[in-house]
Amino acid sequence: MNVIIRKALVTDCKRMMELVQELAVYEKAPEAVTVDFDHFVDSGFGISPVWWAFVAEIDGSVEGFALYYIRYSTWKGQRMYLEDLVVTEKLRGMGVGKKLFDQLIEEARAQKFTGIAWQVLDWNEPAINFYKKLDNVSFDAEWVNCAINF
Amino acid sequence: MNVIIRKALVTDCKRMMELVQELAVYEKAPEAVTVDFDHFVDSGFGISPVWWAFVAEIDGSVEGFALYYIRYSTWKGQRMYLEDLVVTEKLRGMGVGKKLFDQLIEEARAQKFTGIAWQVLDWNEPAINFYKKLDNVSFDAEWVNCAINF
Repeated sequence: MNVIIRKALVTDCKRMMELVQELAVYEKAPEAVTVDFDHFVDSGFGISPVWWAFVAEIDGSVEGFALYYIRYSTWKGQRMYLEDLVVTEKLRGMGVGKKLFDQLIEEARAQKFTGIAWQVLDWNEPAINFYKKLDNVSFDAEWVNCAINF
Repeated sequence: MNVIIRKALVTDCKRMMELVQELAVYEKAPEAVTVDFDHFVDSGFGISPVWWAFVAEIDGSVEGFALYYIRYSTWKGQRMYLEDLVVTEKLRGMGVGKKLFDQLIEEARAQKFTGIAWQVLDWNEPAINFYKKLDNVSFDAEWVNCAINF
């Protein structure tokens, strides 16, 4: 199995959106994906990008990605916010997610971010166990997500 | 009491950081504020801003603010992420927070964001009650915050 981790290209967007859909099904919320594809592409590759990503190319095909944006924390300053880390189901447990995460850490340090933040569903044990194996991860279940959807 | 809601100016940063510190004490984590002041100013008013804010000027003095950044959700697209909404303790309960929130909603609609997201501590009843009075707010306690601090 040949795994290459590289920056996402505009031509990866279609496949990335398929993986987003797969993740949403896994997270029991497929109907929650209402993002507009053209706007997704423009938000990553237009004149004012607001997201960046790495993809995992496995034997020539994109089978996973990690997408982040810049969070501004008034406590910690600029941080990497990891929005999605996904590897297609049939290729999980082979170290691809770890390779993506290592790349994120390298990038976050290069960008002088003060850290990396993300969220995990409290019932998603495989993901929680994956994150527990990383160094120095803190978990905080004290916060409630709030939203107003237009 | 004369309340003016306006965009934050670079000259508001010092007072805003005092209010961040007040909020951190209220949230029982004063030691968590390690942000660098110059970097805070540069992140809001430098060549590539990553945060924006409105302040509440009460009788000529800044006594509250709302600070946000752009979140990119692979499910919902570009959203306003409300990082902090704070009104100094002695002036709470007078409708200032509501005025700030109304301004955020107006701004989020003008920027064509798909919504507004934020977090609240699960024990912060005054804040939760404030948010419950707004229209169409959803609450989701299923997610755990994770972080690696460099």
